[in-house]
Amino acid sequence: MGTKPSRARRHPLTLALLTDFGLADPYVGQMKGVLASRAPGVPVVDLSHGVPPQDIRCGRFFLRASLPFFPDGTLFVCVVDPGVGTSRRILWARSDRHSFLAPDNGLLEGLPLCECREVANEKLSLPVVSSTFHGRDVFAPAAAALAGGLAPAKLGPAHPLPQGKDEEPAIVFIDRFGNAVTDLPAEKAMGRTSVRLEGKSYGPLRRTYSDVGEGRPLALVGSFGTVEFAVRGGSFAESFGARPGQKVTAGND
Amino acid sequence: MGTKPSRARRHPLTLALLTDFGLADPYVGQMKGVLASRAPGVPVVDLSHGVPPQDIRCGRFFLRASLPFFPDGTLFVCVVDPGVGTSRRILWARSDRHSFLAPDNGLLEGLPLCECREVANEKLSLPVVSSTFHGRDVFAPAAAALAGGLAPAKLGPAHPLPQGKDEEPAIVFIDRFGNAVTDLPAEKAMGRTSVRLEGKSYGPLRRTYSDVGEGRPLALVGSFGTVEFAVRGGSFAESFGARPGQKVTAGND
Amino acid sequence: MGTKPSRARRHPLTLALLTDFGLADPYVGQMKGVLASRAPGVPVVDLSHGVPPQDIRCGRFFLRASLPFFPDGTLFVCVVDPGVGTSRRILWARSDRHSFLAPDNGLLEGLPLCECREVANEKLSLPVVSSTFHGRDVFAPAAAALAGGLAPAKLGPAHPLPQGKDEEPAIVFIDRFGNAVTDLPAEKAMGRTSVRLEGKSYGPLRRTYSDVGEGRPLALVGSFGTVEFAVRGGSFAESFGARPGQKVTAGND
Repeated sequence: MGTKPSRARRHPLTLALLTDFGLADPYVGQMKGVLASRAPGVPVVDLSHGVPPQDIRCGRFFLRASLPFFPDGTLFVCVVDPGVGTSRRILWARSDRHSFLAPDNGLLEGLPLCECREVANEKLSLPVVSSTFHGRDVFAPAAAALAGGLAPAKLGPAHPLPQGKDEEPAIVFIDRFGNAVTDLPAEKAMGRTSVRLEGKSYGPLRRTYSDVGEGRPLALVGSFGTVEFAVRGGSFAESFGARPGQKVTAGND
Repeated sequence: MGTKPSRARRHPLTLALLTDFGLADPYVGQMKGVLASRAPGVPVVDLSHGVPPQDIRCGRFFLRASLPFFPDGTLFVCVVDPGVGTSRRILWARSDRHSFLAPDNGLLEGLPLCECREVANEKLSLPVVSSTFHGRDVFAPAAAALAGGLAPAKLGPAHPLPQGKDEEPAIVFIDRFGNAVTDLPAEKAMGRTSVRLEGKSYGPLRRTYSDVGEGRPLALVGSFGTVEFAVRGGSFAESFGARPGQKVTAGND
Repeated sequence: MGTKPSRARRHPLTLALLTDFGLADPYVGQMKGVLASRAPGVPVVDLSHGVPPQDIRCGRFFLRASLPFFPDGTLFVCVVDPGVGTSRRILWARSDRHSFLAPDNGLLEGLPLCECREVANEKLSLPVVSSTFHGRDVFAPAAAALAGGLAPAKLGPAHPLPQGKDEEPAIVFIDRFGNAVTDLPAEKAMGRTSVRLEGKSYGPLRRTYSDVGEGRPLALVGSFGTVEFAVRGGSFAESFGARPGQKVTAGND
């Protein structure tokens, strides 16, 4: 926690929502209804509701890669929650700049956290708590309470910081343009002679689409600062059958 | 209308949008442009734009099930409108807590309404009214006028309250996780030995996913307070070919 | 530019976003994070993120058709940008009522513009600019700076106004209801005896769906003020295999 003053605000000033609910169903709308009821006037930003259902790794990647772009004092409300209705815990945590609510399932791993608590205070939840939708019944009212100035200590007892596990770098999602986005940090591939997907080389890391000819594949530094596979003017995923989970490596050969 | 003071505000303080427009087309964006023009600063919340095209029963279900989560004084702007361009009426109505704009096609049935009017005042609409998009040309400007303090009596003449019809409980939609959500209130299935879909039993009503083993189907109290069919860790709709309209019953046998 | 005072505000009061990013990926969310960081409190309206990937013609159509519904002083941030990472320019432009940021790729053609500049001031961008996502790294911070009062002259040097090219009218997109929306202005088809798609006549232009029987096709004045092909109570696109790019004509025969 150090000695220099934290830029994390005592009260969150912006709520950012990250879920795997999609936007067709009314789940996100109901969460926003609760926020409008209990935290009127607090800005709510949709980070994404397009995390593939129950895909914790993708949710964690979206969260970690998006942090630099959000204001100091943002509270990220993260609901990718396959364990809803079981005894999994809900955590609140904070870094120097931001704070977070998420299930204790790995979503918060790898973040530069400095404090963590269990959200155990049932008085914060809606009067009736379903066993299937804690995003609305527990997360949203807790977020509203924090935005209203609730001291984090009132959420529940201190909890050890979530620890990251080592994972082999892989494709984490395919974006709308057919780019295959991996979680291999770009700096680990820079200067290497070949970037490989499931062992197949796509040459060295490029800077931009136009470094190759129209219709040609490439590996480049993508929008998340990680290695991304693309086809200039086309869809890498379609052309090469790429899908989440395929392993990426970089080496000299 | 009773004698105790209504919590419905004289002026709506929040606008909630419910449509079947989806979010790919610019229809919702144009409605929001009208609201930003005519009701600047009034908060707009998307309840859902994912009602299946022209599916009034699903729209009504989304609306009714979401009311408890929205603030007092919310005006719900509901546009599922297969009759646009015909002589169908547009209604304004209010309950004790909320108010509503919707076509007179059944969307508002089953709500606890206490007052209803026809929206007949053409001076409230945009200068040019299309015959295909009243959400933008009639509903949005009427909502903005109400948010600005227009007395509901200025909308048009009083209208009888919409009456609910009895419908056999059925699947109303399949959510993103493959859960089959029905409109059978959970309390009607509690304590019964079997909950059936199209006659096939899935056992008694369960409390939570973890009441059955991984990969097993169950009927449980869902996020809407109604009976929902699910597969723990899977998709009920995919595994069992469930689709909207299939009938649900609960009994002892 | 004339002599009467412009209704375009010195500072944009509303930001409207138009992209081809979709809403599943976190790209729009990251742009909103930048706006929340650098222009807190400025209203952001989503016009549409459903422009088909890299479809400049459709983006231009969405933009042009939506202008009348947005408030004076709106800045439209338009990112359909197949040339990102190449040497294509980014433009700022304004009309009498609105202003615009867009790549110099035709998105702004056909608008009633009165001033145009190149966005060349690199000091406005994020500290690190990716080669794949200028919407977040260049457009959003430039929009925030303008919303904060930056004089447009500080963006970069004056640039010639984008000129429109003549294009044969065609289907520009298929909407969620299966309507085939064209960019042929309705007034060019009014009074003609037949409106044709790829040479096949669908009769004269109708006013509303109910001008034909249930299940019958028609050409009508659509929600954009242009010719639209529809099936009453059905999907024109499905029934007739319509798709973007098919040519529409109107004549007497």
